[in-house]
Amino acid sequence: MRLHLNENTAGCSPAVLDTLRALGRSDVGFYPDYDAARDAVADGLGVPLDHVLLTNGLDEGILAAAAAAFRDRSGDVPEALGVAPAFDMYETCVTALGGRMVTVQLDEEFTLRVEDLTAALTPRTRIVFVTNPHNPSGCPVPLERLRTLARLVTPALLFVDEAYVDFSGGTLLTPGAFSAMPNLVVGRTFSKAYGLAGLRAGVLVATPGVLAPMTRVVPPYSLNAWAAAALPVAIADRRYRDWYVDQAKTSRALLSDAVQRLGLRTWPSAANFVLVRVKGDVSTSVSALAARGILVRDRSGEAGCEGCIRITAGVVADTERAVAALEEVLCGAR
Amino acid sequence: MRLHLNENTAGCSPAVLDTLRALGRSDVGFYPDYDAARDAVADGLGVPLDHVLLTNGLDEGILAAAAAAFRDRSGDVPEALGVAPAFDMYETCVTALGGRMVTVQLDEEFTLRVEDLTAALTPRTRIVFVTNPHNPSGCPVPLERLRTLARLVTPALLFVDEAYVDFSGGTLLTPGAFSAMPNLVVGRTFSKAYGLAGLRAGVLVATPGVLAPMTRVVPPYSLNAWAAAALPVAIADRRYRDWYVDQAKTSRALLSDAVQRLGLRTWPSAANFVLVRVKGDVSTSVSALAARGILVRDRSGEAGCEGCIRITAGVVADTERAVAALEEVLCGAR
Repeated sequence: MRLHLNENTAGCSPAVLDTLRALGRSDVGFYPDYDAARDAVADGLGVPLDHVLLTNGLDEGILAAAAAAFRDRSGDVPEALGVAPAFDMYETCVTALGGRMVTVQLDEEFTLRVEDLTAALTPRTRIVFVTNPHNPSGCPVPLERLRTLARLVTPALLFVDEAYVDFSGGTLLTPGAFSAMPNLVVGRTFSKAYGLAGLRAGVLVATPGVLAPMTRVVPPYSLNAWAAAALPVAIADRRYRDWYVDQAKTSRALLSDAVQRLGLRTWPSAANFVLVRVKGDVSTSVSALAARGILVRDRSGEAGCEGCIRITAGVVADTERAVAALEEVLCGAR
Repeated sequence: MRLHLNENTAGCSPAVLDTLRALGRSDVGFYPDYDAARDAVADGLGVPLDHVLLTNGLDEGILAAAAAAFRDRSGDVPEALGVAPAFDMYETCVTALGGRMVTVQLDEEFTLRVEDLTAALTPRTRIVFVTNPHNPSGCPVPLERLRTLARLVTPALLFVDEAYVDFSGGTLLTPGAFSAMPNLVVGRTFSKAYGLAGLRAGVLVATPGVLAPMTRVVPPYSLNAWAAAALPVAIADRRYRDWYVDQAKTSRALLSDAVQRLGLRTWPSAANFVLVRVKGDVSTSVSALAARGILVRDRSGEAGCEGCIRITAGVVADTERAVAALEEVLCGAR
């Protein structure tokens, strides 16, 4: 049971699979067309078409945003600012491009404090990465705090990674967002609630002016034809997406209750995963769960995540089996 | 008839489509695994596994190579060197990353001259891009010339884009290549002979040391699961690939003969396309062909390609229809 990468444990909507199976040899052989996919994504997000840049998973979006922010090569080594712990692709992309990643350590509650971030701004800060809900804790960040942050980090970009927002509902993508926050870039992925991780489909949302240099980093045929065909169908199957979001919400409550019953520390997650501080040796717990067929993510190597594992909250029936294994393993590890 | 993007006009091997149709909802939902695909690619190219970096189409490989070459941000704006005319992604990637693209104009025969390139080297040159066979002329570059170039451009990287090498046979990937040319990066794509353009699958081949900083630019889940599943099957179906290469070779001879009969200038192509200098207004010819259902590529806007269109040489039956239309349209345009 794959509970280590925050995938959709049910896979994609059956309607998506039907669509993919109807594709033919020329769809494999020809470069893709994105018109229908872009329309569906813009419409689904409620944003204008020119605010949308499809990316080969959100990872490519993070790279494109960093590359665009670092494009000006005059002056010192450019910096990106973020929090720790965080999704590792921010730092990977920033350093791969020769930039410097500056991070602010979150406290025990994983609270994002505007003043801590602004205190770390320098004239070299080009982009600020924040994930909402936070990964790996799942804690939601108040939107008002992000709006303040967008204002205070200007002229740097504020990149808000909303990879898990389908499970929290707290999106910055509301009418007027880009008038109030012209330096905002919102990242979304279809890997989670929509279950398209294997097809690689993400999107950046920003004003056309902010997107333009990012568009040049993303190759003209970045998404594959299967992702392009899947997106309109996945977005249209709202019932499937809503069903899965409900499953994940129920599952995270089950997981959270279970680990609290076991006397373990966890945090209020708004995402499709929960972070748990286990007792004793983390790798022993991870291996013991793996031996029972349950893969979880060892996050204990990161500052602020000492002793922690992250568990995906997916289909409820799977979670119930996972809870039984957790009780067995983590109870023994106390 | 799509003869404008040098795709495989027959699409992928039927065996590839069978494999793709057998994939299920969890293949869509889960992040891909690349072990089988990497093994098949390394084995197919006859190179060690640690010399291979799979990329989301070769476009991503070009971006990754440029980003790695430009990673050091000390000193002046970094430069990439290439020829003109050329595939536009080199300049797009280089400038998107804040670098400068320096180009050497080819002569009327599209002859790559080592001394012209070395004369354009500066202390800021980090990478040199060459396509073999050349795009858009199809002219092959003697391998000995590339070996000399690799030596002379050191410490810059020599990126040899072998996108069309399946049709020419003249690859630099022979035993001992990287001992002789440690600064060599070879790019390959599965979009052409293998007909996987819609799936996006390319590869960079270089020493592990040269690949390492490029690997950091390519996200860990860059190829989609469909491309990963297709690659071993496409590579194993050697008969299909060889059949298609034969079709393309016959087609390029048919196209070349036809345009020469029409008294038009063309160049000896070793690729799956031919460049033709038409008479009169290029866009009129392109439109007239499009009206007959034949899409060709207008390359006339590039220095050295004045008056030229590029036509894909694919399945012979398609080419015969295309030749009839070309005779009608281009004869009238004389």
